[in-house]
Amino acid sequence: MRNRFYKGSLTLIWLATGSLLVAGCTQVETSDTDAQEATAPSGSEGIIRASFNDDGSVNRPENWREWVFVGAPLTPNALNGGAAAFPEFHNVYIEPSAYAAYSETGEFPEGTQIAKELTTVRDNNNAENGSSQEVSGVGYFEGEFAGLELTVKDSVRFKDEPGGWAYFSFGHKAPPYEQTATAMPTDSCNACHAESAGDDFVFTQFYPVLRAAKPQ
Amino acid sequence: MRNRFYKGSLTLIWLATGSLLVAGCTQVETSDTDAQEATAPSGSEGIIRASFNDDGSVNRPENWREWVFVGAPLTPNALNGGAAAFPEFHNVYIEPSAYAAYSETGEFPEGTQIAKELTTVRDNNNAENGSSQEVSGVGYFEGEFAGLELTVKDSVRFKDEPGGWAYFSFGHKAPPYEQTATAMPTDSCNACHAESAGDDFVFTQFYPVLRAAKPQ
Repeated sequence: MRNRFYKGSLTLIWLATGSLLVAGCTQVETSDTDAQEATAPSGSEGIIRASFNDDGSVNRPENWREWVFVGAPLTPNALNGGAAAFPEFHNVYIEPSAYAAYSETGEFPEGTQIAKELTTVRDNNNAENGSSQEVSGVGYFEGEFAGLELTVKDSVRFKDEPGGWAYFSFGHKAPPYEQTATAMPTDSCNACHAESAGDDFVFTQFYPVLRAAKPQ
Repeated sequence: MRNRFYKGSLTLIWLATGSLLVAGCTQVETSDTDAQEATAPSGSEGIIRASFNDDGSVNRPENWREWVFVGAPLTPNALNGGAAAFPEFHNVYIEPSAYAAYSETGEFPEGTQIAKELTTVRDNNNAENGSSQEVSGVGYFEGEFAGLELTVKDSVRFKDEPGGWAYFSFGHKAPPYEQTATAMPTDSCNACHAESAGDDFVFTQFYPVLRAAKPQ
């Protein structure tokens, strides 16, 4: 029912950019029909996943804020010489059916989609470290939306990408985000994600929700 | 379907502590039957909300990590004289049916439940500001679960609380969290939340997801 609602009223509100988080290498049978969902794992009822077009571009998912939140890394410009790649909060979500599969198997299934939405850091403190002074103390607080990115694992469609993961940006900017995106160059994202190759290129070390969900 | 899964396998994984986020004052008809769901707004199918017992205590919800994430405030000890009330990341979630209602009306309905799960801040940097050095840069990254808190808006059950909001802690500690909790003293939470009395005691200024969902 969350999705029903979203379809009705949030389409008008959401739009903007971001960066991503995964990669690995298995060959699994995937559907290759264009303009349809990327290899949807079971259990996606009602969730509006990203879909692909004939030209290979991907359509923005509609309700990523209803996906399962996994963690919010933060690398402020103030702590990175003024030049962090992504100086915002990174709100990272995994599409629910992929989360369910991961929770059962400990592996990211074909068709996994992970979204990263960026939000600016509030700053009313003029502190050197970029923090803000709020009622609950000095620290970092989410401000405004500033970008949306997506990664999709599809070892057939993206057979040349590490782990079959491709990365997309719908704009590193305030909403409205772009409606479609094409895969980014491998190096631009995998340069970092390669560090997590041992965990299928997903930064699970930063995502306690995924670590807890993984079967022991 | 996300919930079906959760019921089956996450119950074993989750348990621990936290702190909360809301408060207001309206008189709305609510169910008063004990050991049942707190005034559930419509649209909660499959979501395991907190329920109340005969003695007034509340039972921990089961799948708050599937609720709608709204923001992740962070007030590190290092930036607060070593004594932040909650030095962890605050992963804040609103129960989905309350989110749907808020998105339609701009108000938190009776029965709204908001959870706040705390996670430690990774520290492999020994930096004065408490940050960590990771592949994506210097900043703050979520470590381990460290607490779970909940607030419930029920103007009948909690008629003496500001806005009808009561606050509960299932432990400010690592999992396993407590199974039940009793309402905390008003001042212990409302001292901060009173600052947001104009927005029904919810810190929407820190939650871009709620601001975006609110009808314009």
